Amino acid sequence: MMACTTVTEPRALALSLLGEIREATRDGLGVTRESYGAGENTALRILTERAQELDLRCESDRAGNLWLSLPEDERAAPFLVIGSHADSVPQGGNFDGLAGIVAGILILLGLRGRHEDAAPVRVLALRGEESAWYGKAYLGSLSLLGKLPAATLARPRRDGVDTLSEAMVRCGADVAAIARGEALVDTADIAAYLEVHIEQGPVMVNRGWPVALVTGIRGNVRHNLIRCIGESGHSGAVPRWLRKDALLAVAELLSRMDEHWRVLLQMGMDMVMTTGICSTSAQSHAVSVIPGEVAFSFEVRSQDTQTLERFYALMREECAAIERARHVRFEFDERLFTEPATMDAGWLQRLEAAAVQGEKPERIASGAGHDAAVFANAGVPSAMVFIRNENGSHNPHEAMDIDDFLAGIELMQRAMTSA
Amino acid sequence: MMACTTVTEPRALALSLLGEIREATRDGLGVTRESYGAGENTALRILTERAQELDLRCESDRAGNLWLSLPEDERAAPFLVIGSHADSVPQGGNFDGLAGIVAGILILLGLRGRHEDAAPVRVLALRGEESAWYGKAYLGSLSLLGKLPAATLARPRRDGVDTLSEAMVRCGADVAAIARGEALVDTADIAAYLEVHIEQGPVMVNRGWPVALVTGIRGNVRHNLIRCIGESGHSGAVPRWLRKDALLAVAELLSRMDEHWRVLLQMGMDMVMTTGICSTSAQSHAVSVIPGEVAFSFEVRSQDTQTLERFYALMREECAAIERARHVRFEFDERLFTEPATMDAGWLQRLEAAAVQGEKPERIASGAGHDAAVFANAGVPSAMVFIRNENGSHNPHEAMDIDDFLAGIELMQRAMTSA
Repeated sequence: MMACTTVTEPRALALSLLGEIREATRDGLGVTRESYGAGENTALRILTERAQELDLRCESDRAGNLWLSLPEDERAAPFLVIGSHADSVPQGGNFDGLAGIVAGILILLGLRGRHEDAAPVRVLALRGEESAWYGKAYLGSLSLLGKLPAATLARPRRDGVDTLSEAMVRCGADVAAIARGEALVDTADIAAYLEVHIEQGPVMVNRGWPVALVTGIRGNVRHNLIRCIGESGHSGAVPRWLRKDALLAVAELLSRMDEHWRVLLQMGMDMVMTTGICSTSAQSHAVSVIPGEVAFSFEVRSQDTQTLERFYALMREECAAIERARHVRFEFDERLFTEPATMDAGWLQRLEAAAVQGEKPERIASGAGHDAAVFANAGVPSAMVFIRNENGSHNPHEAMDIDDFLAGIELMQRAMTSA
Repeated sequence: MMACTTVTEPRALALSLLGEIREATRDGLGVTRESYGAGENTALRILTERAQELDLRCESDRAGNLWLSLPEDERAAPFLVIGSHADSVPQGGNFDGLAGIVAGILILLGLRGRHEDAAPVRVLALRGEESAWYGKAYLGSLSLLGKLPAATLARPRRDGVDTLSEAMVRCGADVAAIARGEALVDTADIAAYLEVHIEQGPVMVNRGWPVALVTGIRGNVRHNLIRCIGESGHSGAVPRWLRKDALLAVAELLSRMDEHWRVLLQMGMDMVMTTGICSTSAQSHAVSVIPGEVAFSFEVRSQDTQTLERFYALMREECAAIERARHVRFEFDERLFTEPATMDAGWLQRLEAAAVQGEKPERIASGAGHDAAVFANAGVPSAMVFIRNENGSHNPHEAMDIDDFLAGIELMQRAMTSA
């Protein structure tokens, strides 16, 4: 245990923890906390040292995640788990993940001296939530629940320094058990998985909501690469009726899908559609050549599996119609599907009931993925509170107001102690 | 003069000239005849040697172009000029340009023994028609007419081996006179500029026309680079109403312009529209990031200046409307404009009248540029006959049937001797 003054006042403790870990994982532009790597280790080491100063019990599970609890609370499972992840994307922001762990610590400390009034609580600082490092998200939570596909262990890190398996071994994880798909925790021991997280989009800032309740975590259906094949030709010499312009075909597809999206939103459906990558062929395109090929990505996200499937089917139908009308061909790579996750209705009600009179929090869907989706889809009742945040996440310009943060923590704390 | 058997039968001569020059300028894939460079020099040397064997008079002008005439025809100007260009794009086809020179030679030889029946004729083998080498087209014809912008002389070749000025000096051109904009020929001496050329598009193949009369050469208005600036963001976390998706904005623009184009064609206007290059930012795009920037080109071609200007204005209006609706911004680079050229009505009638009864040739606009546009815009009555050609031009797969070629030559020859 380090010999230093122990801060326990919530605001000061939050600022101190967030500040110390930001400084220790700074990369010049933002912060970098590699999944199962140096930055994440630094964050977990600081959290452990400070937790010990605060007389909290610190334990690692066999997936390398850090658990914190009140040593004076000897009660058995089931317990409420509150936490988030310790890693970040490269040159990321300080709050995405870390804020949720700090929130858990503040809530745990708030129970000191009155823990018998509520269910047992454990704080979980997860590893490896970001897909940026090994191309796969939720490494820590999936490993914990015995759901990490074994093939993932062989994935190289983005910079090639190691494989996930090597990195996990260095962090003390039981890779053999993880490879076997062994559950490292009994989900029956977890009464609920709860998480406080910054919003990664701009809705709450625009709406003026300091905190909001997450209704669900959008799933997605995705093609990383669709190719539209037409026929190149001289831009001056080929008339409209003989063209097979791959770009005008893709433009029509996207415009049609954009219009369908607009209509479905008006009908009250939850979804977003994005083509993040779209390009004529850099090898052969030219100002005066009709594009013979366009490569593009396509992603739909929704809280509702049926909406995902129906919008995807609509997209394929539109492709077929455009193929006939424009004499082009669409070629699709592997379809990737991630199941949406629904947050627990009971916990949503509980969080709503915990709000101060007249400050009933609004509800919002999470477009980004979270470990809460992994717990929810494993049958653990899960809930999330979002904190207002400017400038999105995954960048150094994340901006969370400490007052909003403390309001979110207070809401979660009241819900956790209201049972 | 080389000692070899002189072929004069038109079909055999055409095949022999085209074949010999193809072999001498082969590059493995197609043919390469650099403007004011090695391949073009080779073609002109072979043409000169064969012309001398055929007892034709060979002269170079001060722009390095080659003129052929009947030495026995002592008549003064004005004369009819028939010709085309000797250069090609890199890995180009054998017929684009060269076929028109060969056509001129055949027509000139056809006048032997009866040249007094028609106006004096000169064959002009032009240099430097292709923009592929120095980024500017019509170098030989513009220089001849005193219309080459002096700054063009400093342009480097695509592979950096020299500047146009250096290359022209090596080919014997009077670069000082060209830089001064001195006309190296008196346009009053040219009664008409006539050209036989392969079609560079697929219309004649699709329509089943072996030869066609060119009504005009499309001009164009062009931006090489337009940037649409929106705002990037998390593909899952930003709802539709807060997005500034640059790609959906460009897709809407292109779809709207495509529809306007369709309608204008139905109203009988002549035009083609092409966005040959379109790309999200390769540095920052990702499947799960809303595109914050798209770069694209835009080109319209038409025989009619007003159509060009109106369609261009319509495009700018649609951009402004989309800027307002989608909260994006369009940024335009320099607008480039090339004037359309109209072929001479009298010569079109003469060519039509020269057709064999029941084989009246169809009329077609040239989408690609030709030296004939330079002569026409300098006030010289100009006309072109197109020959059916499969697979477009500027590639090794050009495919012109020799029967179509001879039919085109015969038509031109009858028109030239009908006065």
